[in-house]
Amino acid sequence: MKSYREMDKNELLTAKAALEEKYKEEQAKGLKLNMARGKPGASQLDLAMGMLDVVNSEADMRTVLGNDTRNYGDIDGIGESRRLMADMLEVQKDNIIVYGNSSLNIMYDRISHAMTHGVRGGVPFCRQPELKFLCPVPGYDRHFRITEYFGFEMINIPMNENGPDMDLVEQYVNNDPAVKGIWCVPKYSNPTGISYSDEVVRRFANLHPAAPDFMIYWDNAYCIHHLYDDKQDEILNILTECEKAGNPDMVYMFGSTSKITFPGAGISALATSFANVDAIKKQLSIQTIGHDKINQLRHARFFGNIDGLKAHMKKHAELLRPKFEAVLTAFDRDLAGLDVGTWVKPRGGYFISFDALPGCAKKIVAMCKDAGVVLTGAGATYPYGKDPLDSNIRIAPSFPTPEEMEQAAAIFTLCVRLASVDYYLEKLG
Amino acid sequence: MKSYREMDKNELLTAKAALEEKYKEEQAKGLKLNMARGKPGASQLDLAMGMLDVVNSEADMRTVLGNDTRNYGDIDGIGESRRLMADMLEVQKDNIIVYGNSSLNIMYDRISHAMTHGVRGGVPFCRQPELKFLCPVPGYDRHFRITEYFGFEMINIPMNENGPDMDLVEQYVNNDPAVKGIWCVPKYSNPTGISYSDEVVRRFANLHPAAPDFMIYWDNAYCIHHLYDDKQDEILNILTECEKAGNPDMVYMFGSTSKITFPGAGISALATSFANVDAIKKQLSIQTIGHDKINQLRHARFFGNIDGLKAHMKKHAELLRPKFEAVLTAFDRDLAGLDVGTWVKPRGGYFISFDALPGCAKKIVAMCKDAGVVLTGAGATYPYGKDPLDSNIRIAPSFPTPEEMEQAAAIFTLCVRLASVDYYLEKLG
Repeated sequence: MKSYREMDKNELLTAKAALEEKYKEEQAKGLKLNMARGKPGASQLDLAMGMLDVVNSEADMRTVLGNDTRNYGDIDGIGESRRLMADMLEVQKDNIIVYGNSSLNIMYDRISHAMTHGVRGGVPFCRQPELKFLCPVPGYDRHFRITEYFGFEMINIPMNENGPDMDLVEQYVNNDPAVKGIWCVPKYSNPTGISYSDEVVRRFANLHPAAPDFMIYWDNAYCIHHLYDDKQDEILNILTECEKAGNPDMVYMFGSTSKITFPGAGISALATSFANVDAIKKQLSIQTIGHDKINQLRHARFFGNIDGLKAHMKKHAELLRPKFEAVLTAFDRDLAGLDVGTWVKPRGGYFISFDALPGCAKKIVAMCKDAGVVLTGAGATYPYGKDPLDSNIRIAPSFPTPEEMEQAAAIFTLCVRLASVDYYLEKLG
Repeated sequence: MKSYREMDKNELLTAKAALEEKYKEEQAKGLKLNMARGKPGASQLDLAMGMLDVVNSEADMRTVLGNDTRNYGDIDGIGESRRLMADMLEVQKDNIIVYGNSSLNIMYDRISHAMTHGVRGGVPFCRQPELKFLCPVPGYDRHFRITEYFGFEMINIPMNENGPDMDLVEQYVNNDPAVKGIWCVPKYSNPTGISYSDEVVRRFANLHPAAPDFMIYWDNAYCIHHLYDDKQDEILNILTECEKAGNPDMVYMFGSTSKITFPGAGISALATSFANVDAIKKQLSIQTIGHDKINQLRHARFFGNIDGLKAHMKKHAELLRPKFEAVLTAFDRDLAGLDVGTWVKPRGGYFISFDALPGCAKKIVAMCKDAGVVLTGAGATYPYGKDPLDSNIRIAPSFPTPEEMEQAAAIFTLCVRLASVDYYLEKLG
């Protein structure tokens, strides 16, 4: 196909007319698909239904250590669930506190706690004059909403194929004491799908923060969410690297089974240094009588161990792969060579990120919606919902069926082409 | 029996010698009983085991409205669980947000949120110069620990048989803008077991707080936790009374199934005005992806409706009553007429509160411990763990068996008598 960039006005107008006709046809089909959030599909949820049977009225409700999971106690999580989450996040069991059903809560809670009580005994954030947070972009909107809610000034850090721009990260963190943290999704990043290189992880671990209360918020949401058996990303362990670098307490790692068992009915975990674990357990004893240990038992018994967890994720991969490939096939087929945008082919995670031509993202999302395909709002992948280039679009292929995904992808590429033709027409004047 | 108060020195010394011998005998038995916390007994937990079967791998996982409880959504709780908690707390369904597994978390969260974001759009507590909180005493240690943690100055408000001393409450709340809240356990109070009279509830509703951000923290933990079929306390509904009084937004009510199904694996709820519910839902959408809806479904299906819940609590009462009566029988048998302390006979809840002679509580708790009976630490029922009279002791009869409870109660009354004899001996000089 000839690139739109190389077309003259007449060629573009001809292309546009054909695309518009196609768009009307698609609209007439009355499709209704929601890909706004990274929701697992029903077939994925079905895989975990057996978990609801392993702890029934006949079950032994005691932990390996003999504690009754039905009563108070084990505020940091039952041993077997801490072991499971430790193996998943590749840390030691004593690095782990198992929380409730959502790692987002843990992140919110860490920031909220820092606001009122400071980090590691430091001055509470709410008494500090200036608060800044680094936000690799495009990134996860729910991260950004937490730091926005607590009044941080959020600073965009461009992502590249190896992770955040570390020159910029170092410049901010090592010089500005108002910079209190950075949001990271280090593996199969939301939304770009890339994983941090070893060099990036090491540079994170070797930061020399100007702020004594700077922390890395390392959301390892997709740590075992591979799409392929043979092509898998692996990242260095940030806890180990921070320890080596003499910064053992500088990182909070988060994880959950939201996208392994059931979103909202999974278990979540915080992984951090022993010193941090000790301090946080003191806070926890004020905050809660403990998390749901029966659900922890359910998870531990259903998976048995990390091998069970990994085997389970292979089944997820088999369900997700065709959906991702439907999108990527459509991109290659409909967009390659047209100079209408760029995308990455992720090896895992939940998203495909598409960078449209500048100023086109909102238009594409709106056109998709008018043709029955709801995407994550344009701009959502940036702090304050403001994508300075109006370019990035997050595609969440997990919820629709592969067939629906093919239809949706065809509509998406159509809208991309339409917006791009307009873009080049405008450029020609 | 002759009152110790009326005994002369010789009589007291004779009594003491006999008691000391008895104490040694009890010590020799090597009993080991922990009554430190209000933990349900295993037989109570067994009553809820059927709940683990109602949501299994064959179950329809959709709510009445058709939403899949296994996926994201319903951030304020699924409709059927909101209905159940609304009926339990005697409010409307739209007054309810169903949370996770612990109402203590909700209380902590409300205070924490007020620290950083203020109450109803007011100045964040962390930016206000002075923060005070009223604490009816004796009260619940975990309440006090939350307000201590956030740096409130806690003010003791004496409890009487109708509730807190409302003259004092009004004096503080209506005049001091630093007073931001009051902790209440209005029904079968922790630990005194009394319930607030209608007049007390109405006076609460008709407060004219000097602080625009004053709130009543109404922990309705034992709302359906009756011990008897025929003798039941009922209290006025604080939400309704506040509305009538023109203070609709002034109260947060809390409840949970921690002491109905499983502590730590129950569901909890906040009940408050529609305006407050709306505001809190906005915060919730930042804080979490939602609570565990499968556990909500489990609760809703297991109980069916409020009648199922109440029938379940009758079974609890049958198990708890003998334990309470073992204590009260021992008190009547061993302590009545001796002038060694006072107690209330509760009609529900989880505790029996004993007021020993001044300066005796710590001694009694220590002696009990040396004879194998661990009680809640003396002082724990007061802010900062400081009982100014060193008098109050909380007894939690739920966890031991009735037989163990009889043994423990006999040891307790023995220790009370020993400490009291010493008290009167010291008085005589």
